[in-house]
Amino acid sequence: MLSPDFLAQLRSLLPSDRLYTDPVDCYAYAYDNSRKIFPPEAVTFPLTSDEVLSIVALCNIHKIPLTPRGRGTGTAGGSLPEQGGVALSLERMLRITVVDPANRVIVTEPGVLNQSVQDAARPYGFFWPPDPSSAAYSSIGGNLATSAGGPHAVKYGTTRDHVLGLKAVTGKGDVIKTGCYTTKGVVGYDLTRLLIGSEGTLAIITEATLKLTPLPSARSGLTAHYRDVTSCAAAIVAIMALPQVPSALEFLDAGSLNLIRGRFPEMLPTDTRAMLMIEVDGSSRDISDSTAAILSACHNGGLLHAEQVADTATLWKTRKALSPLLRDIAPKKINEDVVVPVAALPEFLDGLMQLSSKYQVANVNFGHAGNGNIHVNLLVKPDNIGEMARAEKCLAEVFDLVIKLNGTLSGEHGIGSEKRAYIGKEVDAATLALMKAIKRVFDPNNILNPGKLFP
Amino acid sequence: MLSPDFLAQLRSLLPSDRLYTDPVDCYAYAYDNSRKIFPPEAVTFPLTSDEVLSIVALCNIHKIPLTPRGRGTGTAGGSLPEQGGVALSLERMLRITVVDPANRVIVTEPGVLNQSVQDAARPYGFFWPPDPSSAAYSSIGGNLATSAGGPHAVKYGTTRDHVLGLKAVTGKGDVIKTGCYTTKGVVGYDLTRLLIGSEGTLAIITEATLKLTPLPSARSGLTAHYRDVTSCAAAIVAIMALPQVPSALEFLDAGSLNLIRGRFPEMLPTDTRAMLMIEVDGSSRDISDSTAAILSACHNGGLLHAEQVADTATLWKTRKALSPLLRDIAPKKINEDVVVPVAALPEFLDGLMQLSSKYQVANVNFGHAGNGNIHVNLLVKPDNIGEMARAEKCLAEVFDLVIKLNGTLSGEHGIGSEKRAYIGKEVDAATLALMKAIKRVFDPNNILNPGKLFP
Repeated sequence: MLSPDFLAQLRSLLPSDRLYTDPVDCYAYAYDNSRKIFPPEAVTFPLTSDEVLSIVALCNIHKIPLTPRGRGTGTAGGSLPEQGGVALSLERMLRITVVDPANRVIVTEPGVLNQSVQDAARPYGFFWPPDPSSAAYSSIGGNLATSAGGPHAVKYGTTRDHVLGLKAVTGKGDVIKTGCYTTKGVVGYDLTRLLIGSEGTLAIITEATLKLTPLPSARSGLTAHYRDVTSCAAAIVAIMALPQVPSALEFLDAGSLNLIRGRFPEMLPTDTRAMLMIEVDGSSRDISDSTAAILSACHNGGLLHAEQVADTATLWKTRKALSPLLRDIAPKKINEDVVVPVAALPEFLDGLMQLSSKYQVANVNFGHAGNGNIHVNLLVKPDNIGEMARAEKCLAEVFDLVIKLNGTLSGEHGIGSEKRAYIGKEVDAATLALMKAIKRVFDPNNILNPGKLFP
Repeated sequence: MLSPDFLAQLRSLLPSDRLYTDPVDCYAYAYDNSRKIFPPEAVTFPLTSDEVLSIVALCNIHKIPLTPRGRGTGTAGGSLPEQGGVALSLERMLRITVVDPANRVIVTEPGVLNQSVQDAARPYGFFWPPDPSSAAYSSIGGNLATSAGGPHAVKYGTTRDHVLGLKAVTGKGDVIKTGCYTTKGVVGYDLTRLLIGSEGTLAIITEATLKLTPLPSARSGLTAHYRDVTSCAAAIVAIMALPQVPSALEFLDAGSLNLIRGRFPEMLPTDTRAMLMIEVDGSSRDISDSTAAILSACHNGGLLHAEQVADTATLWKTRKALSPLLRDIAPKKINEDVVVPVAALPEFLDGLMQLSSKYQVANVNFGHAGNGNIHVNLLVKPDNIGEMARAEKCLAEVFDLVIKLNGTLSGEHGIGSEKRAYIGKEVDAATLALMKAIKRVFDPNNILNPGKLFP
């Protein structure tokens, strides 16, 4: 419980409309897309780096847990105030302070939405490549905290590849400036990327210098339907062996397709058991070459049919149909985002089918196949204790398979609270101990997002 | 001086052909391309991570400075054994352990030459983009330690953009594994990029998982001659405002061109006072479009002539002519590699001329203009005390100008020993203190490359 003394000091830092202490108000900051609920005892809405600093300083004095959050769209529980204390919402730090097309740079505060950055860049012919599916309503600060990916990462990379520098307040209460404003720079340690993906455990990002990329002049795509997942996986490997890199290469398995059929019986051919949606971008001349090469790589014994799709709305129609259905089943799924090397996808997808059968747990698998990044969803009834126990065992075996195939437990969601029990499967004890020691340097009193990321 | 006890223990770790203690043998490991000389008292040549670990452990017990080095091509003094002790040469860790074109990955030991990686990747249609001018004889370990750049960084980025994971031995003597084998991964802190560019002060990299990029199917280019540096700088800004990103955009100023004229009187038109060499890569169709757009951006009132160049040998002829001349004047130059935002290049290049005039110090400036990365060379006679004093003042003002223009002190050389007196101009005290605290976590006894990078 926050002491009256602490609360009085907190009230002296912020006007009343930027400090919530009523539990009803605080409740909206108790959850994120992990669907767990941990109400904070106060929610703060700083507008400046100085205000962030003053809140961090006060929480240090009183050793109060402080959990930064963007827009709460993360799925790994990174922004949950698990230990109560104070939530620090960055949603009102909304200024885009620099739009500099000549240097291909935008400087933003952390609360700015990903979409707002895209809107600011587009008139100049640029975009910012990270595109998590939440891009329309997730914030830059949250994108940075998780090093968010998305479907276009296969060509453009993830968040860490598109940030030049940061300003931040460490857990200790130091204001730091990392990186630079230019596309090259090797002065000192790369603290920029150390903060990116650190899930609010090291510092609170108060400003980001983002590197822009020219918008492609054209986009096209194709869809490919397969009679089985094995031939579809073989096609993914063949496509990713081409010199032409697709701008997106998304996969839907039989479980995903059946979920869609349940709502839209006419949308899909009955014999399609696995499907690819492939986007290509670049100059219109290159696109026709790339599409032809990729179409050729799609062909194998299991291909039912493949077709070029001129507009992206048609291309993504099936994937978009899946999203609300996934939300409907959300309370009844265990949602993971593992990655395996692309060439290991056939073995991995085959292994998933075997594990589903072994543990009698239905699954729905889809995702960013061009990066080997598969969203594995185990469908469960939470009140069926036996099924939940089987699902937990199944999940542990899925992770073991991922590690055996030289993969990683999370491609874009992060560890947060959801995966911390498993991080030791991937990261050895010495490396984990080093990460914890770095955490202590940034945050000696362990006030910033305490308990997250580590087992 | 190394004690007989320490030396005896060191001898127990390595066979005699992999341990030098004779000062004559050690002398070859006393210098790098910074041209300073600090002989180590012993040179070790480990072959395995375990041997690296045993040397680190021994140096920790005896608190002996340990300076890792690749092939000694760095220009900032990062590999100089300034405090004596033991040099740890990684030049015999020469295995490429994995060539995995299906996953676009090569795994190497640190002593492998950059060129050897290119040779291993090329048969599969791939390359590894970092291309410092020393690529033929610099090692991957050194490229990583400095986050090396090169002319193609304007399109492809620098070393930190092309590494998936590392194995390393920290200064404390922990064996750590960072990153992953896949193109996406957000499990734990990004220690991979923390080590890249850390100049051997945190850990000794013993293995690197490199991300490959498809070779472009074609390359072309053009040269553009200008009557003055101002119009040339304007053209750089115009080119970098295009959506077509050149694969290299190199600049030579009047000083550079005059140096070339001194040796090759016929190579250059007499009225050229600034010059661009521009390379474009991609599909042959795209190249003709890009070249036309870039050629158009080259046109302004100061353009003397521009011409397309079909083969890269002709394109780089002038730049290649400059290299040996720079080596000839090397003892008489102060060599920097500052970066300014591209749009600030006109003001920066103008400022350089004014500073040269103000301090009466001749300079030669050239470099990777597409990144705003300019190699500033002040030409001095080291025995002329007055000129050296003027050059030092001039250099300090050059750095001040760079910082004022929102630039950075080093784009690809690093801090090493050469720039540590200046790092405080760019990095504030709190951020520097944090970097030093991170150094203490990795290397509590300060044995790894002590004294480097920090003021």
